Amino acid sequence: MHSTTNFPLRGPARIEINEVAPRDGLQIEPVVVPTDAKVALLEALSACGFARIEATSFTSAKAIPALADAEAVMHRMRRAEGVRYTVLVPNLRGLERALSCRPDEVNLVMSASETHNRANLRMTRAQSQAQLLAMIEVARAAGVPVNISLSTVFGCPFEGEVAIDAVMALARSFAEAGADGITLCDTTGMAYPTQVRAVCETFRRELPATGLTIHLHNTRGMGLANALAAWETGVSRFDAAAGGLGGCPYAPGASGNVATEELVHMFASMGVDTGVDLQRLLGIIGELPTVVEREVCSQLLRAGPRLRTHQPPAWLAEHFAAQ
Amino acid sequence: MHSTTNFPLRGPARIEINEVAPRDGLQIEPVVVPTDAKVALLEALSACGFARIEATSFTSAKAIPALADAEAVMHRMRRAEGVRYTVLVPNLRGLERALSCRPDEVNLVMSASETHNRANLRMTRAQSQAQLLAMIEVARAAGVPVNISLSTVFGCPFEGEVAIDAVMALARSFAEAGADGITLCDTTGMAYPTQVRAVCETFRRELPATGLTIHLHNTRGMGLANALAAWETGVSRFDAAAGGLGGCPYAPGASGNVATEELVHMFASMGVDTGVDLQRLLGIIGELPTVVEREVCSQLLRAGPRLRTHQPPAWLAEHFAAQ
Repeated sequence: MHSTTNFPLRGPARIEINEVAPRDGLQIEPVVVPTDAKVALLEALSACGFARIEATSFTSAKAIPALADAEAVMHRMRRAEGVRYTVLVPNLRGLERALSCRPDEVNLVMSASETHNRANLRMTRAQSQAQLLAMIEVARAAGVPVNISLSTVFGCPFEGEVAIDAVMALARSFAEAGADGITLCDTTGMAYPTQVRAVCETFRRELPATGLTIHLHNTRGMGLANALAAWETGVSRFDAAAGGLGGCPYAPGASGNVATEELVHMFASMGVDTGVDLQRLLGIIGELPTVVEREVCSQLLRAGPRLRTHQPPAWLAEHFAAQ
Repeated sequence: MHSTTNFPLRGPARIEINEVAPRDGLQIEPVVVPTDAKVALLEALSACGFARIEATSFTSAKAIPALADAEAVMHRMRRAEGVRYTVLVPNLRGLERALSCRPDEVNLVMSASETHNRANLRMTRAQSQAQLLAMIEVARAAGVPVNISLSTVFGCPFEGEVAIDAVMALARSFAEAGADGITLCDTTGMAYPTQVRAVCETFRRELPATGLTIHLHNTRGMGLANALAAWETGVSRFDAAAGGLGGCPYAPGASGNVATEELVHMFASMGVDTGVDLQRLLGIIGELPTVVEREVCSQLLRAGPRLRTHQPPAWLAEHFAAQ
């Protein structure tokens, strides 16, 4: 799979992928995937070499019925060595539930834009920020690392452009409160490469000690272009969802997360070490339709890795032998 | 549509797009599009602001029945000022036919890899190269500019990696014979960004006076990432197909060309001038299903340009007023 030619790299030689399909993917599927199937998916993904896996979300069962079995999933699944299992947590009640399951990290979330935060979390940004700061304290007291995912960093489906200053003000407050990492999310696929570069450069300059993850969607086809732009600024952590599962219920027509297999394939083609076994991952993606009970449109699964060659047409040898 | 924030550009501020859907797209559609519909499509595309449009192909009607009406198309369509109409020409017989239609450019084609050339053109590379050199002479004598499209430059679906030396040897021979431009084609979507960068840099260093166009496919999701990599080396001419039509019959599962609307949208988002009216183009893409009698999966048409904002949910105002 790795390239035979080594062209110069303009970014990190090694990246880490956080596989988010079990949470970000399954939460918006119309079918509720049974706990056993979730556990099986998580265990299969655990064998692929991911640095992190977002296993589930401790949201209210009313808000996201698809992930109502968060505790059961966390307790039943066998954890693989070397994988950090992170869980999404929207509020203090969820944090208590999450901490009881001994995650390796909790991932707290709010939006960079006011309207999206209100629509998605039913709180003002100020309310969310205060709550997240309190949650950071609780998690730190429990000794659990905290990541903050900021939604709509690269654009808001309600407001349009989002000011980088608003993003950095939130990021700074969480970093100062002791968050270990921050994920900048392109929630509805509005990011474009020069913007991604500028935002990542600003973040890395202003908060060099805070781990930066980039979460991209492929809504307008720019997912991998944006990943490339981020990587070239030194970003080495990416969220991605197997099969490109996921999306955003507030952006009609939005396609899902950047597909993990395409992200892995691009970086591996360039000779960047992702840690992920692409063949094994493609095997899992081939089974996803039975998990989510719909077709999963994975371009890479269909086309195969770039060096999967084909037999020439049968007439070829004869045609040229006859010349 | 253009971005409100201007982030630094690392490539040309202006690019030219060669719309290839009428040729590269329609040639592999299972339906034969009637001449009138082709002419209507070409005239609609002509009003979008493209620098070049590949209008048809002067191939034998037996090989590509879908484009058997090349002369009729060229004679019937009204040409727009400022657009250069190019036509694909595979051999000397096709060149005679093409020249009788007064194209603004002829586009000759062969593959960089031996097996693909044999499969696609039923000739050895040496035979193709000799024929193209003869055709360049005929076209130049007729005063018509010549472009050469080299297929499988970034990988061959039969052979795997393709040596850049083989590509450059062909390119050099055509440039020395007087070809005005050369298109490096990622025929089956095997290109990856560091490779694209290296190949484009080599080409521009060794043949600085020869116009370079890049032709990308999105087979493995890397289309726009590769376009970005090429642009950052200074490339300013891109092939693309409206709605991502096209593909390669010899690479099962291969999806089509980079979608013009996604290429235009990415560059326009960055503030790069493409010359193309995206709204008008999206209108045409919306009608493509009636032309090709199948669904056309345009992510951008579905999601809309990045700054197409949505109304917040209706409950939002009431919910926060009540607080």
